[in-house]
Amino acid sequence: MIDVVTAQALVEKRSKLVTKSEVVALKDALGYVLAQDVFSAIDMPPFRQSAMDGYALNVGNDNSYRVLNEVKAGDNNNTVLKNGEAVRIFTGAAVPDSANTVVMQEKVTVNGSNINIEGEVHNNSNIRPQGEQIKVGEIAIEKGTTIKGAHIGFLASLGVTSVVVNKKPTVTIVVTGNELVTLGNLLSYGEIYESNGSMLYSVLKELGYKEASILSVRDDYVSTKNTLQKAIKNHDVVIVTGGVSVGDYDFVGNALNAIAVEKIFHKVKQKPGKPLFFGKKGDKSIFGLPGNPAAALSCLYIYVYPLLKRSEGATVTKLQRITMPVAGDYNIKGTYAQFLKAKVNETGVTILSGQSSAMVRAFGIANALVFLPEDKREVHKGEMVTTILLPNA
Amino acid sequence: MIDVVTAQALVEKRSKLVTKSEVVALKDALGYVLAQDVFSAIDMPPFRQSAMDGYALNVGNDNSYRVLNEVKAGDNNNTVLKNGEAVRIFTGAAVPDSANTVVMQEKVTVNGSNINIEGEVHNNSNIRPQGEQIKVGEIAIEKGTTIKGAHIGFLASLGVTSVVVNKKPTVTIVVTGNELVTLGNLLSYGEIYESNGSMLYSVLKELGYKEASILSVRDDYVSTKNTLQKAIKNHDVVIVTGGVSVGDYDFVGNALNAIAVEKIFHKVKQKPGKPLFFGKKGDKSIFGLPGNPAAALSCLYIYVYPLLKRSEGATVTKLQRITMPVAGDYNIKGTYAQFLKAKVNETGVTILSGQSSAMVRAFGIANALVFLPEDKREVHKGEMVTTILLPNA
Repeated sequence: MIDVVTAQALVEKRSKLVTKSEVVALKDALGYVLAQDVFSAIDMPPFRQSAMDGYALNVGNDNSYRVLNEVKAGDNNNTVLKNGEAVRIFTGAAVPDSANTVVMQEKVTVNGSNINIEGEVHNNSNIRPQGEQIKVGEIAIEKGTTIKGAHIGFLASLGVTSVVVNKKPTVTIVVTGNELVTLGNLLSYGEIYESNGSMLYSVLKELGYKEASILSVRDDYVSTKNTLQKAIKNHDVVIVTGGVSVGDYDFVGNALNAIAVEKIFHKVKQKPGKPLFFGKKGDKSIFGLPGNPAAALSCLYIYVYPLLKRSEGATVTKLQRITMPVAGDYNIKGTYAQFLKAKVNETGVTILSGQSSAMVRAFGIANALVFLPEDKREVHKGEMVTTILLPNA
Repeated sequence: MIDVVTAQALVEKRSKLVTKSEVVALKDALGYVLAQDVFSAIDMPPFRQSAMDGYALNVGNDNSYRVLNEVKAGDNNNTVLKNGEAVRIFTGAAVPDSANTVVMQEKVTVNGSNINIEGEVHNNSNIRPQGEQIKVGEIAIEKGTTIKGAHIGFLASLGVTSVVVNKKPTVTIVVTGNELVTLGNLLSYGEIYESNGSMLYSVLKELGYKEASILSVRDDYVSTKNTLQKAIKNHDVVIVTGGVSVGDYDFVGNALNAIAVEKIFHKVKQKPGKPLFFGKKGDKSIFGLPGNPAAALSCLYIYVYPLLKRSEGATVTKLQRITMPVAGDYNIKGTYAQFLKAKVNETGVTILSGQSSAMVRAFGIANALVFLPEDKREVHKGEMVTTILLPNA
């Protein structure tokens, strides 16, 4: 059985960039990964911009200036100022080429069409130089960046109307298990509601993969094989849940074998998620996640998400890790690495109760996973632990 | 001028719950806030469930058992076991009422239809008790919870098909400024591209408010007033950007006055975002955000987002704060509290360069804001600072 670090490295190594790119309108680009560097076609600001409401002028010997006219934001009058002349100017307006400073209005007394400046005036005050934020031809945002709202604001300010992004990998979730009952029906003895499908679907949606589909299959070899075959044909990434343990009736392993899916690994020294399977067929990736929901969700965050981001060409492919002091002592039995549902607060991280693989309840409360490597069997209050931040939590 | 803490408290105090609730299908419930506690209609697990592949039996004096039949996940045979009898059982299957333990298959040798157990066997091993995760009638998820993917998984496992959620407040963004040019057109001297609208729209989308609209208005008193009047009539929250400074041509303040919007506060001792305006007209909330994009975005995260969450009845209304060591020394001029664009990494937080209110570029790199209160004018490498985590970053 391999360890977590090896398993993560194997997923990374065998991730394959989905090479198709597409052009999307800037307003629809949220969550996509840039396929190319975006260069600025303009200087930003595009002109010397006033940072204040006040008066633009050429600093001279005298403190008194005659106000010729005014420049509001958006005005295009580039007044030529002589000695002793000024223009009234407002925040965001173009500073005339012939002015070398903007004096805040709070430092000025007005007498009719003349102003008097109180205190010292310095050259180049309250002027944002042309191209201060970015110059024409410079890279605005690098290839591999996942686009956030702030990026959209920045690119819009540069006049960018569309961007070239990598297509997102297509994902399907295959749910297996005779015990599973579709929502809206009654449970008989021995049955439970199917919940992994809608959980994984919803979390993929939170992570920016809104197009995932869900397929259900009974525990029977032929249907399992046919469904998996079709799923692999039609999707970049196939996530199977359940059927990856050793039970005599787990058909997934046999079916994947028969379809000639190359096993990269099966089973990882971790809790939850020991039965995790990862395989490849050509460029296609196949994950077998445990049927226990909390285990399936942990594996989605730790293994599937990085593969999806990498397939999109993202530079940052993993959830953010931080180091935080743990709120209490915690002991672990066994020899496996642990991903523990946890809650980060302002001063530290609390490991939650209800860590069983079968229980997803604690995941609703959690906003992080505490990672404890194999050699870490106890932590003490205040000790710094690796904390993986969950998205939208 | 009021300080940040007072301003936040005023927004909180004047937030008003949007009292309309609606029923949404569980699969569509992501990001909504529960209007009612959700109770479980079943025990989970609904029966005593095997946690292992192995053998269910009644612990007796002998280590040898005769295997009667098998129980797979989903089977409903509740075999009655006598002394010395066992059933083959698989993970997730119902443990017969007459069995008091499950022995892992790894601890068993099989001889035809008999098994022999190696080592000791304990009562109640490898059995998940009925209702271990939740019992019928207990609260599954509390009112005020913002629904995440993990919640959807948990509720699905309880057979919940729909939930009652609070309606989201409706939001419109009013963009003001003669200097603003719509994307796709060429800039003349003195003009810049309108970017606050699409930035705020995209960030609201990231925060779960997908239905925001954008209105543009020229700097002219009558259109400003008419547009604001209509916006306040039709939406719960109106966000105006630009026109809240002191400039002679900022018509927003006069227009809000004329519409009889109650000013709760105007200007906060903070950087960026000093010109922030917050007002009320009946239940409607009006924010005047600065025209500088980085300032507008900071104010959205710190003031508008909590009001939106509170209007939805959410228990958690603010972005998560953590305390982290700062990566380097930093000095602040002036007397205002600071929200500094920053990047959290595994061991600490780095305050980014490019903190100007006019520059949104650093927000693309940032995944956090470092908050420094008014009395904090310098921080030293390694000092713990309040770090506000940005969503999707």
